[in-house]
Amino acid sequence: MALQRLIDYEDAGLEVRAVYDDILATRKTDYINNFWKALANDPATLKRTWESVKQVMVPGALDALTKELIYIAVSVTTQCSYCIASHTASAESKGMTGEMFHELMAVVGMANETNRLAAGYQVEIDERFKTA
Amino acid sequence: MALQRLIDYEDAGLEVRAVYDDILATRKTDYINNFWKALANDPATLKRTWESVKQVMVPGALDALTKELIYIAVSVTTQCSYCIASHTASAESKGMTGEMFHELMAVVGMANETNRLAAGYQVEIDERFKTA
Amino acid sequence: MALQRLIDYEDAGLEVRAVYDDILATRKTDYINNFWKALANDPATLKRTWESVKQVMVPGALDALTKELIYIAVSVTTQCSYCIASHTASAESKGMTGEMFHELMAVVGMANETNRLAAGYQVEIDERFKTA
Amino acid sequence: MALQRLIDYEDAGLEVRAVYDDILATRKTDYINNFWKALANDPATLKRTWESVKQVMVPGALDALTKELIYIAVSVTTQCSYCIASHTASAESKGMTGEMFHELMAVVGMANETNRLAAGYQVEIDERFKTA
Amino acid sequence: MALQRLIDYEDAGLEVRAVYDDILATRKTDYINNFWKALANDPATLKRTWESVKQVMVPGALDALTKELIYIAVSVTTQCSYCIASHTASAESKGMTGEMFHELMAVVGMANETNRLAAGYQVEIDERFKTA
Amino acid sequence: MALQRLIDYEDAGLEVRAVYDDILATRKTDYINNFWKALANDPATLKRTWESVKQVMVPGALDALTKELIYIAVSVTTQCSYCIASHTASAESKGMTGEMFHELMAVVGMANETNRLAAGYQVEIDERFKTA
Repeated sequence: MALQRLIDYEDAGLEVRAVYDDILATRKTDYINNFWKALANDPATLKRTWESVKQVMVPGALDALTKELIYIAVSVTTQCSYCIASHTASAESKGMTGEMFHELMAVVGMANETNRLAAGYQVEIDERFKTA
Repeated sequence: MALQRLIDYEDAGLEVRAVYDDILATRKTDYINNFWKALANDPATLKRTWESVKQVMVPGALDALTKELIYIAVSVTTQCSYCIASHTASAESKGMTGEMFHELMAVVGMANETNRLAAGYQVEIDERFKTA
Repeated sequence: MALQRLIDYEDAGLEVRAVYDDILATRKTDYINNFWKALANDPATLKRTWESVKQVMVPGALDALTKELIYIAVSVTTQCSYCIASHTASAESKGMTGEMFHELMAVVGMANETNRLAAGYQVEIDERFKTA
Repeated sequence: MALQRLIDYEDAGLEVRAVYDDILATRKTDYINNFWKALANDPATLKRTWESVKQVMVPGALDALTKELIYIAVSVTTQCSYCIASHTASAESKGMTGEMFHELMAVVGMANETNRLAAGYQVEIDERFKTA
Repeated sequence: MALQRLIDYEDAGLEVRAVYDDILATRKTDYINNFWKALANDPATLKRTWESVKQVMVPGALDALTKELIYIAVSVTTQCSYCIASHTASAESKGMTGEMFHELMAVVGMANETNRLAAGYQVEIDERFKTA
Repeated sequence: MALQRLIDYEDAGLEVRAVYDDILATRKTDYINNFWKALANDPATLKRTWESVKQVMVPGALDALTKELIYIAVSVTTQCSYCIASHTASAESKGMTGEMFHELMAVVGMANETNRLAAGYQVEIDERFKTA
């Protein structure tokens, strides 16, 4: 059994092709990356995930590039190498400059450090930061 | 021994007071939050951390609010409740609207989900995403 | 020094061989995988870990396959690529179908997403969910 | 601004009420838990998340209880206290016995341990576990 | 059902009491902390975990205090508040000074930061650091 | 754009060379490892990170080897493969024996396991472990 084989367009069923077509049209590209080709083993998850990504990553109160930066921040924190590689490329294609990338890394590193200092020193939440 | 007691301005030594003064001046506030009061148990770490935060969080290629959003993305991913509470408050004071917050949460949740799908399906990095 | 060299059966001391023999007999296989060959550098940890794994993974109130699925859920969440690869293979040998794998991935992804939404929105635990 | 206030049914708009109604009907309960009341601050995320949870957690190749166990495994690994409390309650309502819970915890703890042993010993993936 | 109630000595069965007695004798204390009282709901896990902790935490090539520091480093990184509180207390009782604690926190914070810089910059392992 | 290319000494600007020189002098080596060569893409982060590492990792109340062990404990917990490889090599050069490494791994694995047991059983912090 190959649970994670990559499914190319020409080997895909109709349901998967419909998602691929939407990815290609939405992203104005002719390339389906490996993430989607792997998810295509499970058409239901492929479709649900793509629909969610499309809805979530669309420009809104935050622009598309800012959303990519946030995505990278998460991926670096969880150490997902595929996600770091693919979304760094994606952010570059959306206009991320080297300077932005460097500042992003600096904030992500710093946040991971201060997160642990806050935990290790068992800092209680200030009254004024409490919700409700 | 109380390794993590909160040190107020009036109980602080000169070295700590100098950092507190700089925090108050830089942030144009009269409030030192608990994180710094806890770090003050170790003046060297207090000073080094504050200098780094000041340098890293300053507006550059990324504006101050974007940096706060990135900070929150990390803190939510690592589940640091102090950091989530304090930086959500901080982001609001820098202009984060409810809509921005909601979109931030949606991207952070989505990224944490797709990070695991990429790992679980053992997706290999596409040639075109490889560095070098 | 090679702290992590893989120790084959023929190069192993008596203590390590005794564990290898038990692995082979318990799993009805003729293959020792790299994880155990690496742990064999420290016979005490090899023995303790194997004894624990044997005790914990045995069918009980939960069957052996369900335990493998839980093991994969953890490994995908922490992004341990060795563990994902080895336990996915192990789960398949215990009867995991493609459909089961896909549903497992969907739940793991979803849980990682909603975990962060709960943290980011600083949701308080409902009275009825509190223990004691 | 209160980004994370809990929104009760009577204070909710039509879009949120429609989701609440579906939660109540699907779960055959008269209780909306805090997670959904917090997400209701962002009706789009509430709706998208609920639709996904409903689709993902439905019995399929894996039964509903097994899915809850997997959900708990993730939540314990990421240390999400809200999710641990709510899904442990949920699993109990679906038939999780004390024995099942104890075995679940034992596997989750063990997997988190062996995940780190595999990483620390830099164990290479066995040829036979490689995909494709 | 109360899966996580704390089981006191006088309410415990013989199997649990035997472990409690060993904890009290080994640690030369008259106090059983909540972690063990919770694990006592599952005597098999209580016994297995205690035996492992006893074996692993005993002074060897690393002394008992160094092992506590390592334990705290892990707990701060995973943000386990119970473990941070209990092992900080334990380390103090074994001689951890304030200065040691502060240096520990500084290293843990720094490591969490540089871990992410290494991941975000996709740094390849130097030939000379490769095993085998 | 190559955000993460490795910058060799002869291709570096004056600011980067000054840091490289300090690394070489401080570590009494003639080798700059890839981590610094990647950070050199952002001279400000290179300089800030090196200054912090130099300050934090210097022998103090904890000796240099103990600090390396703590660094490895974090890196194994977050599954940072670059950091595990480079700091294991570094620890060996500072005198870490095989026995020390094995005990380190045993504690790190155990701590990751008991962290999850504490979370899963929702153990409340004992009064006596509470700060302040």
